[in-house]
Parts: sequence; structure tokens; C-alpha cells
Amino acid sequence: MDKKRLATGLPEPAAGNGLLDRRGLFGAAATGSLAALISRPVAAAGELAVEPWMREPGSPFVGYGQPSRFEAKVVRVFATAPGTTGTGASRTPHHLLDGTITANGLHFERHHSGIPDIDPDAHRLLIHGLVKRPLVFTLEALARYPMVSRIAFIECGGNSGALYQKDPVAGGVQALHGLVSGAEWTGVRLADLLDEAGVDPKAQWILAEGADAAGMSRSVPMAKAMDDAIIALYQNGERIRPSNGYPLRLLLPGYEGNMNVKWLRRIKATEGPTMTKDETSKYTISLPDGKALQFVFPIEAKSVITHPSPGLAMKGAGLYEISGLAWSGYGKITEVDVSADGGKSWAPAALQDPVLAKALTRFRVAWRWNGGSAILQSRATDDTGYVQPTRARLIADRGMRTIYHFNGVASWAVGENGEVRHVYA
Amino acid sequence: MDKKRLATGLPEPAAGNGLLDRRGLFGAAATGSLAALISRPVAAAGELAVEPWMREPGSPFVGYGQPSRFEAKVVRVFATAPGTTGTGASRTPHHLLDGTITANGLHFERHHSGIPDIDPDAHRLLIHGLVKRPLVFTLEALARYPMVSRIAFIECGGNSGALYQKDPVAGGVQALHGLVSGAEWTGVRLADLLDEAGVDPKAQWILAEGADAAGMSRSVPMAKAMDDAIIALYQNGERIRPSNGYPLRLLLPGYEGNMNVKWLRRIKATEGPTMTKDETSKYTISLPDGKALQFVFPIEAKSVITHPSPGLAMKGAGLYEISGLAWSGYGKITEVDVSADGGKSWAPAALQDPVLAKALTRFRVAWRWNGGSAILQSRATDDTGYVQPTRARLIADRGMRTIYHFNGVASWAVGENGEVRHVYA
Repeated sequence: MDKKRLATGLPEPAAGNGLLDRRGLFGAAATGSLAALISRPVAAAGELAVEPWMREPGSPFVGYGQPSRFEAKVVRVFATAPGTTGTGASRTPHHLLDGTITANGLHFERHHSGIPDIDPDAHRLLIHGLVKRPLVFTLEALARYPMVSRIAFIECGGNSGALYQKDPVAGGVQALHGLVSGAEWTGVRLADLLDEAGVDPKAQWILAEGADAAGMSRSVPMAKAMDDAIIALYQNGERIRPSNGYPLRLLLPGYEGNMNVKWLRRIKATEGPTMTKDETSKYTISLPDGKALQFVFPIEAKSVITHPSPGLAMKGAGLYEISGLAWSGYGKITEVDVSADGGKSWAPAALQDPVLAKALTRFRVAWRWNGGSAILQSRATDDTGYVQPTRARLIADRGMRTIYHFNGVASWAVGENGEVRHVYA
Repeated sequence: MDKKRLATGLPEPAAGNGLLDRRGLFGAAATGSLAALISRPVAAAGELAVEPWMREPGSPFVGYGQPSRFEAKVVRVFATAPGTTGTGASRTPHHLLDGTITANGLHFERHHSGIPDIDPDAHRLLIHGLVKRPLVFTLEALARYPMVSRIAFIECGGNSGALYQKDPVAGGVQALHGLVSGAEWTGVRLADLLDEAGVDPKAQWILAEGADAAGMSRSVPMAKAMDDAIIALYQNGERIRPSNGYPLRLLLPGYEGNMNVKWLRRIKATEGPTMTKDETSKYTISLPDGKALQFVFPIEAKSVITHPSPGLAMKGAGLYEISGLAWSGYGKITEVDVSADGGKSWAPAALQDPVLAKALTRFRVAWRWNGGSAILQSRATDDTGYVQPTRARLIADRGMRTIYHFNGVASWAVGENGEVRHVYA
């Protein structure tokens, strides 16, 4: 955990909202009073039963492992465009997960024409346009280059878009905020490949094109391409999955998801943006006056509470951990504050080390629920000083004619029966 | 990358061995000479072919994703005891992976009687022995507790044990060094649960017992249990897989693998170690004089080169990245040096940020292979100042009557034909 924060400088939690900082919680534990705080179904111990699985040898080894059959409910949910099976999005079940890395089988997806079944030996990456030496790379050639690894979040520009709607949509973390995931990505710095091709100084942008049937393509400023862009080959150690761009994708840390072009086949150095269908008909933010914000690339600081959240009913008053994820496309998360009274008072959460720039950050704070109704919120701050806005503030600025880049504070209402649901507050 | 290291203080690589530090490499790239260094199968670009997978919509969504069918070779290999299917070990294919996180399907395993198929609703964790309040925890109760996340390696005490043998065993990274993996683990601090149970001051140890048919159990010093031990529920975000201890395992960061008891069902606070079958008949280090080192818990600093390595043939002289993994059960890796001449000269590798204590650290250094024979080695140093010993030094101290805790420097010979094989040097 954030030791500095634990050691010093924590403001006292606001009176009456039940929120405890980590110091308060561990202080309680250290004096033996944690037991008294938690309403828990533990009993004095007798002998443990010898369950059937201890009575005979277990299952054999397999080459590639899978989750327990008892976790069959831990899956992505997805919706597709009418008449298609592979055009749409799937969402990560963050209410059933913890930590900051998303297991590869559960990373969210957004496909514009399904998942191509690419033969890596046939796949090529072309770098051309305003370069001295147009180049074609095989996978084998790319494997020779120096690699870098980076833990990064990817969030779809449309994540949480339902919160622009006038009335709160029923749903939980997965349905409303499931288009964000985190992973360790490894690959070749795009700057190394562009340097090798020799970029013409006139080229201020690149076009990145995927090898899916949609030819999904986006324009990216050359400055980003030369900064921290990666041609990613590996995700959490293994080769990227087909649903995440096998055999390679563009990784633009902090930039909205679909710019991280999957199944990348072509980088073209250009003077200006290409104005592809994917950045004109979509991924622009329509404003109330009929104008649109185009090329809004980095994801603004944002947070969401994953535990508790809809689908995770609370059982009885007592101590609970409020936990969630925060991220910013501009840098590191420096603070997450949590409210249990709809934003009237706030207490700082602990941030799980290591806190990495442009990566998911797990926050945690203990909460002594008194059994009454409550409204839970979280509010992230990043190292630019930017503070996640209220939903009202965001909508006052942006209007409600878009689905993109919603990063307003979200609210979960806790009922006296322990049920949690999505509300506006 | 380690910016401090990149910016200052790198010794010049030894002359003639072809090893370049990262500064040297990026310096080359920045001046456009990377292209000249790499013997690569790239060609001037024409039009890219429109492959079949761009001609029709791709595959539909699925709830839980899988790797590409073209990566079917990326699997664990395993060997089992005679007459069994689930007693033995499986090994991570690090030569085919990159980064520091191991995808959950490829995490190494060591089972003493197969993989139990545990119903999480029936599973219980008992804490008893020298405690004021014996307690039984359900999974539901544990989910209420404050959680912590930590990226950590786990290494089997027997990893690399073949290198104690007189003659070098044929094999690569997976066969020889594949019993180590890395993941983000999330769970409840064991100290919190022990505090709640109220540990008697006389209890200086715990016994940790698994719910497999072997009842695999180990003794752990109470000091470790109260320090950074975790009752881990999640691995890389999702619930731990059956092969890694579903629904919960003990995580003892830095301690030899089998102490991280899987399928954990019982923690007993005891005055002394229990002397279980698993710590007397195994996991002790037999010395030349017939005595044995027992209770050697933390993994000593160690490193292994994963790229290139046996099975990854080199094709033509030119620039290659030498890359590998380093780890220490005592803390952080502070330096990894790489040799291309069997240890006569060394150059420092770059360490991939973030460098975390008791976690896998990826090191990388560029190497200009002249096409001749070479012997590649890596040597890790941790923040206690401990330096990974040569194989000769380790064997002089330990003898060759054990298979445990081999952390000597390993050697790959590169032939003029580009083939890589295991040798002693």
C-alpha cells in the first residue's frame, strides 16, 4: 500500500459517514477489534470436514489451464449490432474481479467486424507514406527488435456512455463501466520502427489500419507515435489473443481504446489526419450547439467503485471494504476520495502500490455500514491536478448528445435491504 | 525503463563481446543506424496483400477468450510420477513469452496428488492451535475483509535442479528453469486473520495445510505469517485457477514455491515447526557431509536468459536483444549483468520498470552477434548486495546431492549455425 499515505497526513474521515481510512482500519485490527467490527459468518472451530476432494487423487495436468467450473459465471457479456455476431463490444466483469491486471480471457473487446483469424506467418506490417524507406515487417523480423513492457489500461471511448442518458440505466459495473481493462503489454517501440523508416519532417500524423474486415483505422499525432507508442506482441506474458489484436496491435498508452488499433497491418506517415470513417462518423463528441469535439484522445481521470456494486448484495450492517479502479490517460492517479453520502463528505482511499502512469490503480477504504441507505461515490485526481467532475458538471460542459468520454462521478445507492443499484446523485 | 540507469553511470561494455547497453542501442536508433545494425528480412514496400481474413466478417464474441489457434505450441510441459497423472510438475514456456506477468493458463504447477475439484461453497479455512479464538472462514466471510494486491514471483524449490548434475542436461528455459512464474495476487492479509484469532505469544510458527489428497503441508515462521503473507483469492484479476489453489492459497512472497500452500484449509499456530512429511522427506538441501539444510525458505537472487535460448535459433549475424528474467526472494533486483563470452566480460542490462521486490524483473540488453560461437550468461544482484554465484561456486558450497535452490549462473552456447544449447561454462 501507499506507505507515505498510511504513515502521515491523512485527514480524518468526515464524521458519521462510516468511512475509515486504512490507518483506522489497521489500527483496529492491530488491537484485536477487527473481529468486533465485521458482521461475519465465522464460528468457533471444530474439526474440519474431510471433503470428497481430499479422499482421492485430483485431476491430471493440462498444457493450458482454465478457470474453475465453479466460476462459469465470470464471463464477459456482449451485445452486437443487429444481424451481426462479431460487431459490438464485450465487457469485463469487474464486480467479480480484484487487483489491477485483467486476466486475458476477460479483457474487454470492441470489434467493428468480428475477430479475424490471422495466420501470423502471412501477416505483415507496412510502414509507408512520408518516410525515406518504406518497410514491411514480418513477425519474425519484429521479434528481433528491442522490446519494452508496460502495464497500461485500455478504455473504450464509449465506456460509461449510458450515464449521459437522462435517467439512470439499470446495470452494474460490468454493464455500465466494463469497457476498460488492464494488462502488461510487451512489444517494439513504434519510434524505433519509424526511425528506421526515416520520417519526413512534414509528417505530423500517422494513419494506423487494422487487418479486420472493417479495415478499422485511426489517425494519431506523430508526437504520440514517437513518444510511448508500442507495437504490442504480448499481453500478460503470452502472445496477444485474437480478440485483442493477434498477432499485433498498436498500444497508445492513455488514448481512447479504438486508437489502439488491433490486427495492425499498416502505419502511414501523413501530413494531417486522414479523416477515416472511424473518426468522423464515430468517436467524436457531439456538443449541444451542433458542433463536435474531434480528436479527443487521452482518457480523462476517472474512477468507479467495483465492490460493493449492483449484483453484490450486502448482508448485514458492519465493516465492508469499498474498493474500485481509477485511471487517467494523462498520468498517475494521486488521490481517490470516497463518499458514502452522495458527495456531501469524502474520505481518502488507500492506493495500492505500485501506482503506475496510465494504468489501472486499485483504491480501497473501509466502511462501517450502519445498515441504513447510503450513496457511494468515488472521485479520482491525477498528477496534472485534474479532478474527476460530477456528472452534472460534465453534462453542463458537454451536453447529452454524445456517448463518448463519460468520466463523471458515478453513484451506487445502497438500500436498507443491502441491495445496490445505479442512481444519479 | 530504468531512466536513471539509461541517463548516467553505465560502464562501457567490455570491448569485443558485442554487448550494447540500452543507451548505446537507443543512441543508434536515434541516429537512424538501427536499420544498419539489424540483419532483418524487411523489404521495400509494395502494396500489402488483402488476406482472406479481411474479406469477410470475423468470429463472434465469446464470454471467456482463448489464445490463437496458431499458438497451440505455447503450452506447459509436464512430467508425472510413475503411475500417476496429477503428481509432478508443469513448466512455463518462458522462451515463448515476454514481459513479467505469466498468463494464468501458463503459470507453472507442482502438485503432490493432482488438482482437487473444490466447491467453494463447501470450502472452509480453519485457524486454530495456539490462538484465543479458533475461527472458521467461509469464502463469503473472507470476501468482506480488506484486500491487498501484490505482484510476486513463485518459484519451486526444485527449479533448475538439473544443473546440480555432473553433465549438462539437454533442454531449454522451459525444461530447465520453467518452475517459476509471475502474477498479481490479491487477497486478505494473513496477519489480519491471525490478529482476529488472537495469537498466543508462545506460537512462533504456523502449520499451513492444503485440501488436496496429499494434505500437503508446511511450517512457516510466525514472523513471515505476520509480515507479508496473503490468503490469496485472485490471480491476475480473476479467481485463482484450480491448478493454483482454487479457491484460495497461501502466498508467502519470496519463499520457495511449495510453502505457498494451495487449496489452503488450515492454519495452526504452533510453538515450533511441525516437521511434516513435505519438509523432512523433501525440500531440504542434502549436503556433501550427509547433513541437510532444512527450512531454507527465501529464494536467493537468480536470473536466466529467455531470449535467445534453446529452441530459438538465431538467423544470421547482426543485432539481437538478449532478454531474460531475474528475481530474488529477499527484495528487489538492482542489477543484471550479461556476458557473451562465458563470464570473461560483462555488460549491464536495462531493467524494465517497475522493478518490484520479490517479483520477476525483465532485463534486456542489445547484442551485436558476429556470427561466431558465444556463451551467454546472466548474473543478478539484489538490494541486499547478494550476487548470483557461478555454478562452480554454488556447487563448492552445496555439493551435488540436492536438487533444491539452484541459483547458479546458467549458460547458453550459441553455435556458428545459430543454434543455442545448454552447456556448463
